[in-house]
Amino acid sequence: MRAVDIIRRKRDGYALTPDEIRSFVASAAGKPASPASTWADYQLSAMLMAIWIRGMTPGETAELTMQMTHSGRTFRWDDIPGPKVDKHSTGGVGDKTSLILGPLAAACGAIVPMMSGRGLGHTGGTLDKLESIPGFRVGLDEAEIRKVLKKTGIALISQTADVAPADRRLYALRDVTGTVESIPLISASILSKKLAEGISGLILDVKVGEGAFMKTLPDARELAQSLVRVGNANGVRTRARITSMDAPLGRAVGNSLEVIECIETLRGNGPCDLETLSVMLAADMLLLAGIADSPEDAEARVRSALTSGAGLEKFRDVIEAQGGNPAVIDDYSLLETTTQVLRVTASADGWLTGIQAEMIGRASMRLGGGRNRAEDTIDPAVGIVLLRKPGEAVRKGDAVLEVHYRNEDNLPLVRTICEAAIRIHDAPFAAVPISLEEVVD
Amino acid sequence: MRAVDIIRRKRDGYALTPDEIRSFVASAAGKPASPASTWADYQLSAMLMAIWIRGMTPGETAELTMQMTHSGRTFRWDDIPGPKVDKHSTGGVGDKTSLILGPLAAACGAIVPMMSGRGLGHTGGTLDKLESIPGFRVGLDEAEIRKVLKKTGIALISQTADVAPADRRLYALRDVTGTVESIPLISASILSKKLAEGISGLILDVKVGEGAFMKTLPDARELAQSLVRVGNANGVRTRARITSMDAPLGRAVGNSLEVIECIETLRGNGPCDLETLSVMLAADMLLLAGIADSPEDAEARVRSALTSGAGLEKFRDVIEAQGGNPAVIDDYSLLETTTQVLRVTASADGWLTGIQAEMIGRASMRLGGGRNRAEDTIDPAVGIVLLRKPGEAVRKGDAVLEVHYRNEDNLPLVRTICEAAIRIHDAPFAAVPISLEEVVD
Repeated sequence: MRAVDIIRRKRDGYALTPDEIRSFVASAAGKPASPASTWADYQLSAMLMAIWIRGMTPGETAELTMQMTHSGRTFRWDDIPGPKVDKHSTGGVGDKTSLILGPLAAACGAIVPMMSGRGLGHTGGTLDKLESIPGFRVGLDEAEIRKVLKKTGIALISQTADVAPADRRLYALRDVTGTVESIPLISASILSKKLAEGISGLILDVKVGEGAFMKTLPDARELAQSLVRVGNANGVRTRARITSMDAPLGRAVGNSLEVIECIETLRGNGPCDLETLSVMLAADMLLLAGIADSPEDAEARVRSALTSGAGLEKFRDVIEAQGGNPAVIDDYSLLETTTQVLRVTASADGWLTGIQAEMIGRASMRLGGGRNRAEDTIDPAVGIVLLRKPGEAVRKGDAVLEVHYRNEDNLPLVRTICEAAIRIHDAPFAAVPISLEEVVD
Repeated sequence: MRAVDIIRRKRDGYALTPDEIRSFVASAAGKPASPASTWADYQLSAMLMAIWIRGMTPGETAELTMQMTHSGRTFRWDDIPGPKVDKHSTGGVGDKTSLILGPLAAACGAIVPMMSGRGLGHTGGTLDKLESIPGFRVGLDEAEIRKVLKKTGIALISQTADVAPADRRLYALRDVTGTVESIPLISASILSKKLAEGISGLILDVKVGEGAFMKTLPDARELAQSLVRVGNANGVRTRARITSMDAPLGRAVGNSLEVIECIETLRGNGPCDLETLSVMLAADMLLLAGIADSPEDAEARVRSALTSGAGLEKFRDVIEAQGGNPAVIDDYSLLETTTQVLRVTASADGWLTGIQAEMIGRASMRLGGGRNRAEDTIDPAVGIVLLRKPGEAVRKGDAVLEVHYRNEDNLPLVRTICEAAIRIHDAPFAAVPISLEEVVD
């Protein structure tokens, strides 16, 4: 079976067989079955384009995902009692729910081996947020992960380099060949890494809106349905929520600022949208884990962990278990912050109808809080705080955003972006709920 | 303008701009305008797949062709008086018209700077046939080509390495990424090399049928229309004929055998189908050259060059001018041949309804007369002669094919292929004309 013949089949719109997918994935992972079945990069990319345009059936996507998972290391936690569950978000601005719902779910008895990524472009990354905590190590080896999980029920870690190596190579090619935005390829990329975690349940937070990868509800729904189908087809109970990403989630954007907001939320002082979504997703995890009997039971358990402070204590435990300084929980001055603050104000009287998430994300990136390229370093101190949230009435001159900056190099640009991000109209608007739809198999 | 953005546009079905096409072609030719606009092979191949699936408008195809032509050396023959015309065939089995119509057209006053390719797979190549003539050199440099053209009005040569280098790289990628069979890409590949010849008229012989690249008349028509449109859009008067390639053209398949058949045809002793097609295409060349006023005038001139022997003398002249031994015209024993002959006979009484061209081509290749891979060497002596042609009545045991072989290694396989190539039915069939359609702009 030569690469060119397999490419031709997808080019002509046929569904690939498991053997054909195996040949493609094995080469992508650098482990071809034989020299004759080796795919060159230009063949992988031609196949990616054919998949982008022709699509894949649910069966093909599930098979591709499974093959990609098994292209590298997979974890098993059989020696750790309790249901293993996780959450994955497709990425947004100010999206910090992992640091809240992970500890809450673990406090309720779930085992959460959560492997995350870094931020790129306007979206933040869980690992970057965690690394703003002094000493916190995300790069644990398997023995360390096991130890942390056994001790705390939760580990907040990076994918090790040997997880889904096929995805690594394919993603690098997709990025430079215009083949990123494909539902089957996105599904396989996300889930191949999640399936490697050794979980039995997964809740997906599929963001939709101006600041999300998926801009429209139909697109988000298609991705959510694909993810749910593929996850379940591979033996992981999977559900999805489509949630709004028009404005940043919560009030804080930037790494130290977001960690503080997470701790405040675990204390019960969080912004309503962030608390609502975090509790909802944590409850979904308990349901998928079989810990709760009903949505009401699940939410009651999570809320109890929140109000009792059990979630906050769990966060403290995992920070300590992963080498971080747990004193940050009570002393935010241990986090790197900046006292240089610029306020961006409302340009008119009216109702704040929007704070464009992608612009805020890009402004934060320009401050040094995010990455333009994967190799950029991050400044944990900088970021943007939303003093006002969409829906509120404002008067001209009211401070709407607080820009936390370290130096003034990009400040004029950041101010311009921030001003452009603020939308004010002369009439109130109907706020949308944070969770728009649930998607089940 | 980054490669990935240009790929995305074609992926989404948009027509590419001339600047976008230039960026693609410049990198394919190894001459990107800047490091930032360099396309890697995996980007070229992703674009090729997007073009394969999304197609190109006639305008895009014409632009792509022009850019590919200008990616390398182009010739001008302004110092040689007379109209420059050529013919190109999409390739078939026993298709040797170049060696007949080239001398005939030149004998009628056309200048024919004919650059050809080598055979691959079941189709033969003009260069391979010429090289069976002792001493004949096809690899002339520009000064040598000019000298031969000035002296004889015709040069039968290979493309120099610096002609259309973009096509060279793109073709190599297409071959291994399943992107060969695309009308725009085929059109650009063929015509980029022909436009480099410095001709003002071009007749295309688009083969259709079992032994051709295009298997159906609609497919052949689409290719012919694209070629005609693109040629004319680039300032070369271009017409096409769609001609039949179900059985081999003429009676001889194999390099020395075909040269002998060409000389016999120029003597007036050729098989009817070969003579008819050669005269027809040579007449088309005279019309495109403006040498003849009407199809009737053109055919009369060509027939006159045939019966007078002027065409044969022109062939003798060009053989001599390109270093070959012109005595082969009168002494076929100067050509490498073999006396080992196997006859394949009719398996039943009836009418010979077909001799499958592709199978005969593959059988000849197995004898050593063709190439399976580009680097294979060729044995000029071997081949297959059609003793009987489709349409004739045969009796069981009649010899139909004569296999000229050098050694017996592949002989059982060749015999099996030859037997399978012969189709005999119990009723006569209506023969199709050799030229099925003319395609003009």
